[in-house]
Amino acid sequence: MKKLILLFASIFVLSSCSTSTEEQDKKDILAIMDMQQIAWSKYDLDGFMQGYWKSDSLKFYGGNGVTLGWEKTLSNYKKSYPTPDYSGILKFKINDISKINDGAYFVMGAYHLTRNVGDAKGIFMIIFKKIEGEWKIIADTSS
Amino acid sequence: MKKLILLFASIFVLSSCSTSTEEQDKKDILAIMDMQQIAWSKYDLDGFMQGYWKSDSLKFYGGNGVTLGWEKTLSNYKKSYPTPDYSGILKFKINDISKINDGAYFVMGAYHLTRNVGDAKGIFMIIFKKIEGEWKIIADTSS
Repeated sequence: MKKLILLFASIFVLSSCSTSTEEQDKKDILAIMDMQQIAWSKYDLDGFMQGYWKSDSLKFYGGNGVTLGWEKTLSNYKKSYPTPDYSGILKFKINDISKINDGAYFVMGAYHLTRNVGDAKGIFMIIFKKIEGEWKIIADTSS
Repeated sequence: MKKLILLFASIFVLSSCSTSTEEQDKKDILAIMDMQQIAWSKYDLDGFMQGYWKSDSLKFYGGNGVTLGWEKTLSNYKKSYPTPDYSGILKFKINDISKINDGAYFVMGAYHLTRNVGDAKGIFMIIFKKIEGEWKIIADTSS
């Protein structure tokens, strides 16, 4: 009987750990997206890009097809948003954040840019992966 | 020296295994998408939906927000494409297929519907996860 209680207690502790880890993962991911909103809205595009995997294997997908790599993605952002008038104030709306499996999550959301040149908005799905202990966006589809 | 050769041989064999598994995964995933094109183009929307995770946790994201669950996603497809004139002939263009980690991949692509009521097209990113030995779409963002 004692063994059974111990078994259930262990299962309870383990399952709580698993839940709190998932909650913590989501908090950590949302904190990165908060950082991105702040950086973008200060026209700190390099800071914004710290949320992305600094790798040639990063994939960004949009109306112009697939962009390969961190450097090229940053360079495209700089071209599309040449001044703070174009980048404006970024606000994310998170519609869903779900675990794919250990070490990977997806986020479905919408972005809104309040701008002097006219507002812009769209939807996105991004994939976060834990790489060397840090959550990084490895794939982004925005439209 | 013999040990060193054995070590390199083992590394070579292991890395080939890993590559061929990834290649096989990609083949299996693309085969599912081929099946989906065929089913859709015969107006077999239930068959098309076999590529998706039959779960209330399936997430479909589009212009109308997040749709939760397999049944609701199928029901939305049936509403949006009430007859074969609306569904038409489906053709996918795969722009990228990448491994997220063991048991999960993402696919970036475009779809084109050749239809009597006028063609339709858009882009998507979907996430495949291996569930009970089968690759299933667990998340789909289409626009």
